[in-house]
Amino acid sequence: MASPAPEVDISNAGSDSSPAARVVRATVVQASTVFHDTPATLDKAAKLIEEAASLGSQLIVFPEAFVGGHPRGQNFGDWKTKGRESYSKYHASAIDVPGPEVDRLAALAGKYNVYLVMGVIEREGYTLYCSVLFFNPQGQYLGKHRKLMPTALERLVWGFGDGSTLPVYDTPLGKIGSVICWENRMPLLRTAMYAKGIEIYCAPTADDTTTWQASVTHIALEGGCFVLSANQFCQRKDYPPYPEYNLSGKDEDGPKPDSVVCAGGSVIISPLGTVLAGPNFKGEGFITADLDLGDIARAKFNFDSVGHYSRPDVLSLIVKDHRAAPVTFTSAADQISRA
Amino acid sequence: MASPAPEVDISNAGSDSSPAARVVRATVVQASTVFHDTPATLDKAAKLIEEAASLGSQLIVFPEAFVGGHPRGQNFGDWKTKGRESYSKYHASAIDVPGPEVDRLAALAGKYNVYLVMGVIEREGYTLYCSVLFFNPQGQYLGKHRKLMPTALERLVWGFGDGSTLPVYDTPLGKIGSVICWENRMPLLRTAMYAKGIEIYCAPTADDTTTWQASVTHIALEGGCFVLSANQFCQRKDYPPYPEYNLSGKDEDGPKPDSVVCAGGSVIISPLGTVLAGPNFKGEGFITADLDLGDIARAKFNFDSVGHYSRPDVLSLIVKDHRAAPVTFTSAADQISRA
Amino acid sequence: MASPAPEVDISNAGSDSSPAARVVRATVVQASTVFHDTPATLDKAAKLIEEAASLGSQLIVFPEAFVGGHPRGQNFGDWKTKGRESYSKYHASAIDVPGPEVDRLAALAGKYNVYLVMGVIEREGYTLYCSVLFFNPQGQYLGKHRKLMPTALERLVWGFGDGSTLPVYDTPLGKIGSVICWENRMPLLRTAMYAKGIEIYCAPTADDTTTWQASVTHIALEGGCFVLSANQFCQRKDYPPYPEYNLSGKDEDGPKPDSVVCAGGSVIISPLGTVLAGPNFKGEGFITADLDLGDIARAKFNFDSVGHYSRPDVLSLIVKDHRAAPVTFTSAADQISRA
Amino acid sequence: MASPAPEVDISNAGSDSSPAARVVRATVVQASTVFHDTPATLDKAAKLIEEAASLGSQLIVFPEAFVGGHPRGQNFGDWKTKGRESYSKYHASAIDVPGPEVDRLAALAGKYNVYLVMGVIEREGYTLYCSVLFFNPQGQYLGKHRKLMPTALERLVWGFGDGSTLPVYDTPLGKIGSVICWENRMPLLRTAMYAKGIEIYCAPTADDTTTWQASVTHIALEGGCFVLSANQFCQRKDYPPYPEYNLSGKDEDGPKPDSVVCAGGSVIISPLGTVLAGPNFKGEGFITADLDLGDIARAKFNFDSVGHYSRPDVLSLIVKDHRAAPVTFTSAADQISRA
Amino acid sequence: MASPAPEVDISNAGSDSSPAARVVRATVVQASTVFHDTPATLDKAAKLIEEAASLGSQLIVFPEAFVGGHPRGQNFGDWKTKGRESYSKYHASAIDVPGPEVDRLAALAGKYNVYLVMGVIEREGYTLYCSVLFFNPQGQYLGKHRKLMPTALERLVWGFGDGSTLPVYDTPLGKIGSVICWENRMPLLRTAMYAKGIEIYCAPTADDTTTWQASVTHIALEGGCFVLSANQFCQRKDYPPYPEYNLSGKDEDGPKPDSVVCAGGSVIISPLGTVLAGPNFKGEGFITADLDLGDIARAKFNFDSVGHYSRPDVLSLIVKDHRAAPVTFTSAADQISRA
Amino acid sequence: MASPAPEVDISNAGSDSSPAARVVRATVVQASTVFHDTPATLDKAAKLIEEAASLGSQLIVFPEAFVGGHPRGQNFGDWKTKGRESYSKYHASAIDVPGPEVDRLAALAGKYNVYLVMGVIEREGYTLYCSVLFFNPQGQYLGKHRKLMPTALERLVWGFGDGSTLPVYDTPLGKIGSVICWENRMPLLRTAMYAKGIEIYCAPTADDTTTWQASVTHIALEGGCFVLSANQFCQRKDYPPYPEYNLSGKDEDGPKPDSVVCAGGSVIISPLGTVLAGPNFKGEGFITADLDLGDIARAKFNFDSVGHYSRPDVLSLIVKDHRAAPVTFTSAADQISRA
Repeated sequence: MASPAPEVDISNAGSDSSPAARVVRATVVQASTVFHDTPATLDKAAKLIEEAASLGSQLIVFPEAFVGGHPRGQNFGDWKTKGRESYSKYHASAIDVPGPEVDRLAALAGKYNVYLVMGVIEREGYTLYCSVLFFNPQGQYLGKHRKLMPTALERLVWGFGDGSTLPVYDTPLGKIGSVICWENRMPLLRTAMYAKGIEIYCAPTADDTTTWQASVTHIALEGGCFVLSANQFCQRKDYPPYPEYNLSGKDEDGPKPDSVVCAGGSVIISPLGTVLAGPNFKGEGFITADLDLGDIARAKFNFDSVGHYSRPDVLSLIVKDHRAAPVTFTSAADQISRA
Repeated sequence: MASPAPEVDISNAGSDSSPAARVVRATVVQASTVFHDTPATLDKAAKLIEEAASLGSQLIVFPEAFVGGHPRGQNFGDWKTKGRESYSKYHASAIDVPGPEVDRLAALAGKYNVYLVMGVIEREGYTLYCSVLFFNPQGQYLGKHRKLMPTALERLVWGFGDGSTLPVYDTPLGKIGSVICWENRMPLLRTAMYAKGIEIYCAPTADDTTTWQASVTHIALEGGCFVLSANQFCQRKDYPPYPEYNLSGKDEDGPKPDSVVCAGGSVIISPLGTVLAGPNFKGEGFITADLDLGDIARAKFNFDSVGHYSRPDVLSLIVKDHRAAPVTFTSAADQISRA
Repeated sequence: MASPAPEVDISNAGSDSSPAARVVRATVVQASTVFHDTPATLDKAAKLIEEAASLGSQLIVFPEAFVGGHPRGQNFGDWKTKGRESYSKYHASAIDVPGPEVDRLAALAGKYNVYLVMGVIEREGYTLYCSVLFFNPQGQYLGKHRKLMPTALERLVWGFGDGSTLPVYDTPLGKIGSVICWENRMPLLRTAMYAKGIEIYCAPTADDTTTWQASVTHIALEGGCFVLSANQFCQRKDYPPYPEYNLSGKDEDGPKPDSVVCAGGSVIISPLGTVLAGPNFKGEGFITADLDLGDIARAKFNFDSVGHYSRPDVLSLIVKDHRAAPVTFTSAADQISRA
Repeated sequence: MASPAPEVDISNAGSDSSPAARVVRATVVQASTVFHDTPATLDKAAKLIEEAASLGSQLIVFPEAFVGGHPRGQNFGDWKTKGRESYSKYHASAIDVPGPEVDRLAALAGKYNVYLVMGVIEREGYTLYCSVLFFNPQGQYLGKHRKLMPTALERLVWGFGDGSTLPVYDTPLGKIGSVICWENRMPLLRTAMYAKGIEIYCAPTADDTTTWQASVTHIALEGGCFVLSANQFCQRKDYPPYPEYNLSGKDEDGPKPDSVVCAGGSVIISPLGTVLAGPNFKGEGFITADLDLGDIARAKFNFDSVGHYSRPDVLSLIVKDHRAAPVTFTSAADQISRA
Repeated sequence: MASPAPEVDISNAGSDSSPAARVVRATVVQASTVFHDTPATLDKAAKLIEEAASLGSQLIVFPEAFVGGHPRGQNFGDWKTKGRESYSKYHASAIDVPGPEVDRLAALAGKYNVYLVMGVIEREGYTLYCSVLFFNPQGQYLGKHRKLMPTALERLVWGFGDGSTLPVYDTPLGKIGSVICWENRMPLLRTAMYAKGIEIYCAPTADDTTTWQASVTHIALEGGCFVLSANQFCQRKDYPPYPEYNLSGKDEDGPKPDSVVCAGGSVIISPLGTVLAGPNFKGEGFITADLDLGDIARAKFNFDSVGHYSRPDVLSLIVKDHRAAPVTFTSAADQISRA
Repeated sequence: MASPAPEVDISNAGSDSSPAARVVRATVVQASTVFHDTPATLDKAAKLIEEAASLGSQLIVFPEAFVGGHPRGQNFGDWKTKGRESYSKYHASAIDVPGPEVDRLAALAGKYNVYLVMGVIEREGYTLYCSVLFFNPQGQYLGKHRKLMPTALERLVWGFGDGSTLPVYDTPLGKIGSVICWENRMPLLRTAMYAKGIEIYCAPTADDTTTWQASVTHIALEGGCFVLSANQFCQRKDYPPYPEYNLSGKDEDGPKPDSVVCAGGSVIISPLGTVLAGPNFKGEGFITADLDLGDIARAKFNFDSVGHYSRPDVLSLIVKDHRAAPVTFTSAADQISRA
């Protein structure tokens, strides 16, 4: 795992608090979940955070579903029998938020003095969400974004987020938020993030296609923000053996342990559409870049989709950002009693 | 009274706290009230709890109105004369909550180290409620559910509960709550319980029809929870003699002492709709099953009425869970003085 | 003075704590104040309590304003001259609570082992209140109810109570409280008392009309409680001579000393609306009855205005039961310093 | 059917519009439903309205459930078999509001130039309500009151009204409203009506006891209003034969056709507690009186429970008068399509 | 295809408009789609409607997705390559609403003088919906219900309906609506239908398990309505050959052409929980019954989840029944121009 | 000028009306305006249309501002003197819509039997708009889209469009609309077009950067539509000589006549993100491709931003598509009288 971080002196980053002068070193982690072993996944995360922090990174972004794993290849389709067993295992690998795993991640952010953006599978009762968690260098869990709209087979196992978890955090590094995988194709959702002033747009994903590269470049231009796309790099051997996992259309012919299942492609792009680091389609690794926040003003001068380039008289977006719950209890507390 | 409990080793149940791994042995008691004799009913409860606990049960569920008795067959219709006398007696068989009978039940739960769910007739002043009480293995009374909506003739003698007594308790065995008899047909009430995360859904009842079996199966599927339906098995001889009791349409022809008045049908159903134990339509007895809590995730994978299968944008339920009182005193204490 | 109390053995009343089994012997005293002579009035009270206790009564209820007197017939209308003198005398007949007269009444209750409910004119500084005092058989003063709302001319001399003196005492005899005269026509006040669970509803009054009988019957039914209505029986000779007293429209023509000024009508009514004793429109006397507290359950079975027959979702009463004071000091202590 | 209306000249009633000068002739109809024959009941109503109008009455009040019938004596207790058939028939006798029967009643009010207050069984889908309908001399249906709280066996067949149908109509005759049967014992409901300024308080009932007379007298005093209590006078022959009807405890011994099942007792009482007409316990008939609306001021001078005799600082009643529905559709129209 | 319709004379059904007297003959069609051939499927529908109408049926209900087909067994999982082809074909088999296929169905309903309830795959642009269409005997298309919530793999190909297509039609036969497959497990959705007064509850489904039978029985009881459950009976030969279709886990072993893929189980249940016809697990066929609408009142007498058995003060459901669209055009017309 | 169109037989395109079967041949014209000579520009257009039609194209798309010219390089900055002259000339090159130039373009579309999408500078009074005009093969002018939001220096000479000119035309070729240049970066505007069902998304532009390629690829994926991006290829010699034109920063050093001023980059992309033809950065030319409209369903299966992948409950866009005018006359007619 090599770090492609350029030899840039960023020792005085932050000494000038104006965005134009700020430079932030950020690292995207491209690595695979340890499938069906959440404690081991967290151990791996700890090691990766330590290494990324040693590169001088102030912000570390992990891929979608790093903790808990992406459901690719699991047998959920046979919903009556095997699907239930698969789900039961998958449910067990997910984490409660808050909960002990969240505490551990918060402690890691604190220990290595970084902002941490981590893709997880969140468990709330018996519904799972594909979520991104945010942590600050003070070792605090800040909050989460739940993926609004799962894609294709994900809909079998992930619930739907709502408008209440679309956070953008105003940090000394800049305004940080996250949109997950093909949510990034949702123009209204992106616009909501732009309207919140997002500057460092974290895009954990599971898409390793080349068209994804077009989308993240477009988003950087459209949003006038840095886009940090984090994907896993997974090989067949990272998954449980067949038939527990049957990576669609591949296991029939017996893929080799080193066969690439998810090719990564993690990348960092500037608001002007320049690729700053990556894409890496080779293996696990760090994608690191120094983000010159002055580029945001440079880009917004040309185009600002929620500023001078908007037409609110013609086009107005309503974002319902309250909690959507099927049942509301009128008393303040809807929690059950511990007994 | 025989125990159909399968020979399952559950000695280390609870050693793994994840729901997927938990197995809970539960017993539904199918037995009759000793009518108009609450001390004798409690003695009978004590004996039944001891026996059920000896089967290794961690949770014991009694039928609706086990303490105090179901009003079936009492002459409340003639409200001017006999009805008043019947009510006076029935009122005397009910128990205050808290009160000495509650203390005794709590002690039994503690002595036999079980969670206990007990149907009682609760007396508050001169209004009676059909309630279910909850006790933990530490010998504590946890709280109660008051039936929201009595059925048919029950409306003559039972008051109406409100939204403040819809508890679900988060216990080491799982989340336990109770809905009584035809309340179980109220879709909004059930949804409130699902929203509280109920996992072990206790359904004390007085309905011994076959359509009841359809309803409890449906509820298990709809709620993704275990349903434990507890009904009394009563014969004519369990009731006072005619004319004090006139079991509708039956005493005219002089039923025999062994005639079945309430045929039981207690049953335990899994979240997947499988009948785990019962129904027993033969006599008094224990219905025991080992509940594999991992089945909940298996079932919720397919359907989760308050999770991934809800549509809060279209359908939202408001639960007013405060105490409904005709009179509110602005001082904290509305209690009268002891003098 | 004859006692209509039936020959009922109530020696072991209370041995069975269930309401259904309790029978309480109660006496309403129908007698006149000794006007403008409070020590003599207390002597008369002592004698009446002794006699009533000898009937086996456990509870003795006196009329409104028995100590201090009802202001009927006093010349308060000429407020500049004579009115001032009348008020001065009337103020002097009132008693401080607590105070020596209260101590004497408490001692009487203790001596004769009775619960005592006594109508008095209470003096607090220069404001008078029409109050009812409560005492227990242990010789203790329990507390008071101040009439919330004086009627007609009473408003010239009596202050207005507040929500802080609406006590109901939970005694071995039952739950005892008091509402005075036309306060009994206030539906919200009665409802507050019902909500406190009043069982023995003492209604000292000055109303001797036949419509009063309708009201107390209605209250017994509406409240599901025993109503003990106590009125004075007064003749012209019980008052000071003309012109100090001018009993409205009557003294012009010179009423005879035996003319009836207040005709009594004291009565005891059961929760089922049955008249148990009285009404007595003939003279001073005791109205005694054995109250079968089981009748409360019989009545509440049919109707319970704060239980099964309430509709808190539609109609809810707020009772502000704190002390209402014109001046509030934000420090805990509002007392002046002793120097 | 004889009319006890006094020979009073009311030809110029209404010539002076001040309440003090207004005199209103009102008739309470005491008559029986034609059971299970709603068209015949309406024919009977038409004849009675014609006769009452011929007495010069401006307001005609019918008993509770005149159209549709009171469920007394029907076999609803056996809910599984006969109860269902009874309910099906009873449901068929009820009327939709609005609907053709309502149109006919409105036309009758118009034809005879009277205000009409009519007790009906209202059908809304498969729930029945005990309602009172109001009509004006212009032949218009004004609105309805649905009984909030059924009594005893009524709870098996009648739904519960809510706060949205508590109308008081301000008419040239005075302010007219209605409270049904034992609702009249609900102090908070009565207070709501007083607060709306009710002057002519119509109390259709099914209670023929003597304690009812006490209650209506009390209400007249408490509310400072005229109370017009209308009850049916029913004999055994007015009902279907045994066993379809089994008038409780009576048919065993074979009641004669002329046996009285409901003894009437209809009565009109003034705000001062004076009985103006009735009670009639003898047979069907008209109870007619001339209501001098000036009596209201005379009564309120002494006592006004929502005016000078109220204590809003201590006792305040909240009336939730919106529609209570288990399901609310956010679009304006919740009506189903005609297809 | 045999008709189990009993020999009941229903020639004058509808002559009496009261629900108690109405009897409606209804037929559920259990038959398979002709996969990937919508014109042939419509020809088959025409033949089935003709036959069902010849049985005297006034209402004919088809299964879920009869036109267009259920996606069971299609290869959508491989979303990059084969999935797209499968979707393209499936999209082509769907129908526009309105459109020529809808016109044909309307004409069939008119020709055979029946109400027709038809499950279809609806195409709106590039989103497909699982819809049910309603037609009347006048040959008119009435409207549609779009499935709110697809299940499992359906989520890959079907969009999500909203609250604007939850119709219940008030027809001379009764109030007709439809809820599709596992939507029937959504308690809040069912409650919305009950609140609209549904009487003939059509439940097209794709679930052929025995637990489905429990659910439809429960719904009939809970809703007090007739439930008509219509499922397809499909054999392997009704589908395209392997590998275009790969019926999960079955084609590996080479199922025979006669192998049952979907076993039907269509059934008609009365509001009292009685099975009137079916379930048929044997083959294609008609399930016919005469629905006595009087049974609704008999059932609602015992239980009415949106009437007397509701508790709107505690539990209230909000149904947002407007159209949910991601984009709203403020002009009335959002339609594109024909050019 | 070579056509890269593959040798595909499309002679029977349109014979099958289902989208899955339609293939449309489309040509994007990459050519330069004849600056300041609108008649010559139209002659050039006529020649290009003839050639493109000869390739079998059914749809021909021209670049932004082909008629009238892009203002790049004109001296509008010196607004007091030279700027005015420049604007005067530029205004003179623009065309009225409708008007004679529009008639000529319509005739050309008719003559060559094509759909024609043409970028023009539209003159309305003294305001200019950057518009796109649409014509059909019947030789009719269909309507226009006015650019909502000019970029950078364009804002000095072009007005702002409004929501009333966002047309999408439903043609036998598919649904055609147009968004101009950096409008394509406006996520809400694009979403409005998607909501109108656009299938053939014409993107005339003046952006020849490589990031533009990323954006159009993204749009094809996001919108599930074909994107036809048309840019001019301009050399210095296509413009008037210095100093009338001063192509920013370039003319100082005297660019050669062949210097490239705008490098084209016209491209056609499929809904799956595949580049079908182009980009051409070499010179003027035709970019031609056969659009298989079946690809739209293939793409929407994966992602449909206004269908199954929208979340209208969270994100809703309001499009005000009425005419925005600074002055509104309340009478229907806002036209001045001709006199």
